[in-house]
Amino acid sequence: MVEEASNKQVILKDYVKDECNDAVLVKNLYLSCDPYMRGRMGKTEGSYIDSFTAPGSTITGYGVAKIVDSSNPDFKKGDLIWGLTGWEEYSLIRSTQGLFKIQNADLPLSYYTGILGMPGHTAYIGFYEICSPKKGEYVFVSAASGAVGQLVGQFVKLFGCYVVGSAGSKDKVDLLKNKFGFDDAFNYKEKPNLDAALKSYFPNGIDIYFENVGGKMLDAVLLNMRVNGRIAVCGMISQYNLENPDEGTRNLLCLVTKRIRMEGFLVFDYYNLYPKFLEMVVPLVKQGKITYVEDVAQGLENAPNAFVGLFSGRNVGKQVVVVASE
Amino acid sequence: MVEEASNKQVILKDYVKDECNDAVLVKNLYLSCDPYMRGRMGKTEGSYIDSFTAPGSTITGYGVAKIVDSSNPDFKKGDLIWGLTGWEEYSLIRSTQGLFKIQNADLPLSYYTGILGMPGHTAYIGFYEICSPKKGEYVFVSAASGAVGQLVGQFVKLFGCYVVGSAGSKDKVDLLKNKFGFDDAFNYKEKPNLDAALKSYFPNGIDIYFENVGGKMLDAVLLNMRVNGRIAVCGMISQYNLENPDEGTRNLLCLVTKRIRMEGFLVFDYYNLYPKFLEMVVPLVKQGKITYVEDVAQGLENAPNAFVGLFSGRNVGKQVVVVASE
Repeated sequence: MVEEASNKQVILKDYVKDECNDAVLVKNLYLSCDPYMRGRMGKTEGSYIDSFTAPGSTITGYGVAKIVDSSNPDFKKGDLIWGLTGWEEYSLIRSTQGLFKIQNADLPLSYYTGILGMPGHTAYIGFYEICSPKKGEYVFVSAASGAVGQLVGQFVKLFGCYVVGSAGSKDKVDLLKNKFGFDDAFNYKEKPNLDAALKSYFPNGIDIYFENVGGKMLDAVLLNMRVNGRIAVCGMISQYNLENPDEGTRNLLCLVTKRIRMEGFLVFDYYNLYPKFLEMVVPLVKQGKITYVEDVAQGLENAPNAFVGLFSGRNVGKQVVVVASE
Repeated sequence: MVEEASNKQVILKDYVKDECNDAVLVKNLYLSCDPYMRGRMGKTEGSYIDSFTAPGSTITGYGVAKIVDSSNPDFKKGDLIWGLTGWEEYSLIRSTQGLFKIQNADLPLSYYTGILGMPGHTAYIGFYEICSPKKGEYVFVSAASGAVGQLVGQFVKLFGCYVVGSAGSKDKVDLLKNKFGFDDAFNYKEKPNLDAALKSYFPNGIDIYFENVGGKMLDAVLLNMRVNGRIAVCGMISQYNLENPDEGTRNLLCLVTKRIRMEGFLVFDYYNLYPKFLEMVVPLVKQGKITYVEDVAQGLENAPNAFVGLFSGRNVGKQVVVVASE
């Protein structure tokens, strides 16, 4: 399980011995709780990312941090960055390759764990690059109030499509309809028959499904897809904590009869498009044309609990942990 | 169930009344037994093709036929065609729109139910248009000795990839290795652990899976796909005769971790490419660079039994029914 632990000394010891000329020491400010991290806490055969080296090692994840010391002249003391860091007060990052310097420090820094960071970029790539949207199409987003889903819905509206979202509480459904501008939304926990629910929200069917949950929802969506539909598979959070994946997806034959393209993607493959993404999204955030809701936990000691809450849907909006103020 | 019945009179009666100027009366020569037809024998909600209007009506399917009478000057008495016709001696076809005139009558006419007809075109579209192959990639084909699979394997070899096929008997595996030129092949019925079997045939993983069967095979393949793999979903014959689809596909999360594209397709959407397909395949057949194996049933009275045999894999190669000689 996830536990809090201090390893400040370990970091400093490593740093003294390190011969590398591309390392930085950072003070962590915000940490990001992301569902993909669950995959690193078990065996990861065939996965895209290593498991944590062993129980007892520090958890790593995306965060916002400030450079304290640096052996790379491009990263100076006091610079703000986001990227993979440790769940600890200070982290030694041995390579700056995966770090991004924060240029718009006038926006909330925590946004670089979300709307301006990996989840925002994921929403952008998933919708614009994988879904191949056309104006006027019908789009469904599951886990729609989450870090990625809330942005997908707003991108869909800006693009000119109709969008319905599902989430797991009345509060979240209210957010979707009243804050994020979804055309409609429903609480999947109140819909024992998901197929019937989708038929009522999409009487003419779904052109695009932005898949965040998997399981029974995917099966119901397959029955409601339109011919030449697209399914962008971003994640399947309903499956991550199961000993064995659930009873399985039964309606895949719909892929043939409806000529559906179903495509998984990882934002890591699209870092070259990150500047283009920022160029689009930063002005939208500054002009208030896109909004973002965070669920903020205070203090590293509350990080494990905040992370675990993702899988029961306890968070409302993007789950962030504040480690330190600047 | 499928039963033999004569409806010659019905056809002639209709023909007399018909005002349409695009109808032809044909004498059926060869009928094609294709797995997709199973989908027309039950409820077809959301399917791409209507169910047979009612029990008691004549089964329709692809076939090769000779024009006996015609109200369309483009189709003359004595012309040979292939397309959708009836499982009967003579058929009235009310529109010639879906009919193709046979130009290469020096090749076996039955080939227009297979290698030169819908299944051949399906193999061509599936491999060249959906799989996005690159030379040297590793390709797996299930139901590989069937009407489509045997051609896919040969296209793969001509293209310059490595191909392994699965089938359901020793005879079929021998065909794959010795007649169709697959690099390797196995009998899935002898492999209780499909995951382990695929790992032994593809120690470095699978780039392309040409999916004909669904079910447990798909689940095992997902575990063995490589990053950026593609799955062309042509059919899922293991699922067609189940009251409820089987226990379901459990490993779809692999689509994300390995960034896999899984795409269903129907050849009906690609008829514009049929001339291009023929241009490629006819010379290959004439030069003996592609071979084709048929399982021929004699007489309309044996058609129902031949069709049912598809689902237990009794046929070896493309299942054809001879209704009449020219």
